[in-house]
Amino acid sequence: MTTAQVFFDHRTEKLTSEETHYKGDPERYEKEWVPLIKAYNKAREDAIPKEYLAPKGLLPEGDLDYAPFDATTVPAKVLDPKSLAITELTAVEIAKKIKAKELTAVQTITAFIKRATIAHQLTNCAMEVLFEEGLKRAQELDSYYETTGELVGPLHGVPVSLKEHYNYAGRVTTCSFVACLTNITPEFSLTNQILYDLGAVFYIRTTEPQCLMHLDSENNITGRARNAHKLSMSPGGSSSGEGALIAMKGSPLGVGSDIGGSIRSPCAFNGIWGMKPSNKRVSMKDVMMAPTDTCNEMIVCSLGPMANSPEDLDLFMKSYLSKKPWNEDATCMPIEWRTVPTPKPSELTIGICYDDGVVKPHPPVLRALKEVEKKLRAVGINVVSWEPHRVYEAVEVAFASYTADGNYTAINRLAASGEPVVPLTDHYLQMGKGDKGLSTLEQHFYTNTREALRQEYLDLFNKRGVNFVLAPTYVGVAPKPSTIKYWGYTALWNILDYTCVTFPSGISASKELDPAEDIEPRNEYEAYEYGLYNAEDADGLPVGLTLVGRRYTEEETLKASTVIRDALKA
Amino acid sequence: MTTAQVFFDHRTEKLTSEETHYKGDPERYEKEWVPLIKAYNKAREDAIPKEYLAPKGLLPEGDLDYAPFDATTVPAKVLDPKSLAITELTAVEIAKKIKAKELTAVQTITAFIKRATIAHQLTNCAMEVLFEEGLKRAQELDSYYETTGELVGPLHGVPVSLKEHYNYAGRVTTCSFVACLTNITPEFSLTNQILYDLGAVFYIRTTEPQCLMHLDSENNITGRARNAHKLSMSPGGSSSGEGALIAMKGSPLGVGSDIGGSIRSPCAFNGIWGMKPSNKRVSMKDVMMAPTDTCNEMIVCSLGPMANSPEDLDLFMKSYLSKKPWNEDATCMPIEWRTVPTPKPSELTIGICYDDGVVKPHPPVLRALKEVEKKLRAVGINVVSWEPHRVYEAVEVAFASYTADGNYTAINRLAASGEPVVPLTDHYLQMGKGDKGLSTLEQHFYTNTREALRQEYLDLFNKRGVNFVLAPTYVGVAPKPSTIKYWGYTALWNILDYTCVTFPSGISASKELDPAEDIEPRNEYEAYEYGLYNAEDADGLPVGLTLVGRRYTEEETLKASTVIRDALKA
Repeated sequence: MTTAQVFFDHRTEKLTSEETHYKGDPERYEKEWVPLIKAYNKAREDAIPKEYLAPKGLLPEGDLDYAPFDATTVPAKVLDPKSLAITELTAVEIAKKIKAKELTAVQTITAFIKRATIAHQLTNCAMEVLFEEGLKRAQELDSYYETTGELVGPLHGVPVSLKEHYNYAGRVTTCSFVACLTNITPEFSLTNQILYDLGAVFYIRTTEPQCLMHLDSENNITGRARNAHKLSMSPGGSSSGEGALIAMKGSPLGVGSDIGGSIRSPCAFNGIWGMKPSNKRVSMKDVMMAPTDTCNEMIVCSLGPMANSPEDLDLFMKSYLSKKPWNEDATCMPIEWRTVPTPKPSELTIGICYDDGVVKPHPPVLRALKEVEKKLRAVGINVVSWEPHRVYEAVEVAFASYTADGNYTAINRLAASGEPVVPLTDHYLQMGKGDKGLSTLEQHFYTNTREALRQEYLDLFNKRGVNFVLAPTYVGVAPKPSTIKYWGYTALWNILDYTCVTFPSGISASKELDPAEDIEPRNEYEAYEYGLYNAEDADGLPVGLTLVGRRYTEEETLKASTVIRDALKA
Repeated sequence: MTTAQVFFDHRTEKLTSEETHYKGDPERYEKEWVPLIKAYNKAREDAIPKEYLAPKGLLPEGDLDYAPFDATTVPAKVLDPKSLAITELTAVEIAKKIKAKELTAVQTITAFIKRATIAHQLTNCAMEVLFEEGLKRAQELDSYYETTGELVGPLHGVPVSLKEHYNYAGRVTTCSFVACLTNITPEFSLTNQILYDLGAVFYIRTTEPQCLMHLDSENNITGRARNAHKLSMSPGGSSSGEGALIAMKGSPLGVGSDIGGSIRSPCAFNGIWGMKPSNKRVSMKDVMMAPTDTCNEMIVCSLGPMANSPEDLDLFMKSYLSKKPWNEDATCMPIEWRTVPTPKPSELTIGICYDDGVVKPHPPVLRALKEVEKKLRAVGINVVSWEPHRVYEAVEVAFASYTADGNYTAINRLAASGEPVVPLTDHYLQMGKGDKGLSTLEQHFYTNTREALRQEYLDLFNKRGVNFVLAPTYVGVAPKPSTIKYWGYTALWNILDYTCVTFPSGISASKELDPAEDIEPRNEYEAYEYGLYNAEDADGLPVGLTLVGRRYTEEETLKASTVIRDALKA
């Protein structure tokens, strides 16, 4: 696409989407595209080193999709002790040990390749397997370090997993659209390039759902990924593969993207750490999204890190921003990473959100919030109750924003192959005004409401004297696949563009402690979403909570999250 | 307006603007609104201290609107030596002298009231006269300093003039809409409040054109302002009154706003300094614009300082940002003012734009660029030619953005009083697709083009190794009133959101040196706008140029502008 083209497009082309909802073109799809899907998956399969697979005896019987099986227990039973020890390290520890020559990049990536193989075998988290490329890169890094005595950067030798929709040099980038199976992207996205320049070792690209617009994982190319802690449950999404892979410790550090919860949901469901920064701090340049010719500013996607510790998120952000992406990406904000002190517990006032006023959280989440509250108070953090503010309206604005263009861009991408819509895509396409989209004036009114909400929330934070809000990441723990429809607990913070750090509360759902309750639903969202709770299904799954800071407070929010982590350990 | 209201509005109200172009309602306007206009102007007239007026003998004969008269020569003939000396000081010097007790706030504001009286008498620059309030405030500041030994802030006692459309506590704020003559705003806009808290003395609010959307000055309340250097010519706009007042040294420091050239045009036409910062660095909170219920993000207005020196612009920005407006305004970017070194001339590479590829600059502007180029080279600055890049497209995007809502908001405001449209408003309402507006998809396509242009310009700056671009601020010097239609030399940088510092080149148009030339126009813009040149009219008027830096480089651009200023003096 040339931009000159676009310039003339909007004066001559008919731009309205079709009145009828997208139906797909099964015949063309079967004939022209299914063979490409098969070839793509065969390549993926072929790239898996069979010798690293977990033996069948360690796997649950029957279809993995229906197995209430905790996959995180498997690697320790398969891996050699050295590989196990390496893959238990955080990214910060890996970087340190490589620098100290206690570990080589090759040793590191080899261990993670072994563990990622098992992770993928169980959770179907890989979209593309790049193990050979990763090994070669690690060899080069080791040799560079040996020859020059210098590291290429602060991520020298650190394995980094990538959600698939970031352009990858010389490889197909699909954004999970079948029609993009022929889309070879010649260069890295800017963020991939920066990570590469910092010394990261790429070895795996992870799965995402169709259109990227599910808090779940199904697409027509690689199917669906599975929750690491219970294969039968959803891994969350849209950074689904990252969530499962990092929980399996098949990657110490990954990059997700989030426009409605897509980093936070897989972090919460898989019990790992992740940060959704405010918009335009991490570059989206050459990150493939549904639209290519159009730009919707109503709600904007953020890239951010996913890992097993807040220190790893910090390592990512600090290293990344040292490369000043705004010098290459015109949309990036020129805000350097700031070094801020870790606050004392008594310096923190945290508002806890027990209910967003739209959908009551499920019993395990409420219990987790109460237990966390006790632990925060115990270390001297000031805890207050956070009363919800106009969440229903905020969510309506978010949903209307997603489909503001009447699904023009999403449907064009789907229609290019005729692929069928999977159930949660169908739900997404009907959000807001669906195919009808918004008129320009409606868009301007909704945007005004968004701006008013941002001002009201800032005023509330100021008035209530709250530094951070601690909130559910979702109504419950990971539910069954293809069920989540209410995104309010995450999309609220996208509309507000607040900083979010999602972390494991340390509390898991328990069928004994968290029996289902009957409630009188306040609205249709609640009737549906609260009704999804099933104590047996939830049993054993981690509760991930989210710490929310004002816009562009990534530094402060991360530091505060370490205080909370320490309080939860105490 | 409550935001809850707005939220429900966009689901129930018919939002499309009428098909027919706005015609006004002369009968209702005459009956209901003209009396209010008269009362408003009488209050303005009554607030003028008659004893400070310039005697008739010093004024040109006949209608000032047609007098080719340099008003900047008058104050020295009227003012007492002390008042003259005070009003020749820069804002930085005033702040220093007040701190050093060489001057009181009352002495300062009294001198500026005297000079502002003459400025207004000649240029009609005041929208509202607040001299009594200014004196009272100055007395309070003096007394505070005397009692406590402390300054309230870095602007303690500095007179600051304000364009009218920022909410002013307890006064009417009209944004020059007749229908807003009853709009009493209870509180200051955030930026006014911050300036007040820094110690500024408010004493005058200055004029702006109808809808704020002219590079000129006519409105139906106070008529039009005049150019300080030649009363018969346009003062530029939309910060028209600020431009004329500061050029007359009736104010040392003012605040303008700019969405298409509205700070830069009056600075250039009146021979003063001004900065259009990148968006969202200076708060727009409670700044009245045409829309109140809608928010158009395609092109965004910036507030910025206007003064007689770059050091005063620096004083404004540094002091202002020390108050961290982002803690109160959810839209503001949390970017602190950075202390950057003044570059050596040899460290600067400046691209000079002699032609934007759409409209060739008039002879005085080309001569000024050439003379400036020589002087920059003489001090060792690297000068290269800046080839224009897709300016025509950028301008089309800007024009389409201004009227994206089909003039819904502007027409609603005009129709509330039935006031007639003045000629340049008529031009503005027909920009882009005029009343037809853009569809949502067209808006998304145009926005994508804007984003592509931003990336292309960043890449060009990088590739060409250029730190700054030096460009015309307008095709020519100040033209006759109600003539400017081509905003390309300024609106380009709004679409790109680049930082601009406009400054006097030190060169004035000369009918001898700058004879009119015939050209073969490349397009309709050029046929019209180049055709506006008249060597006799232009004679003696200052040429203001603009130094352009990347987004959010206010600090570097200001520092570079001081190097240029020194080079021009050399």
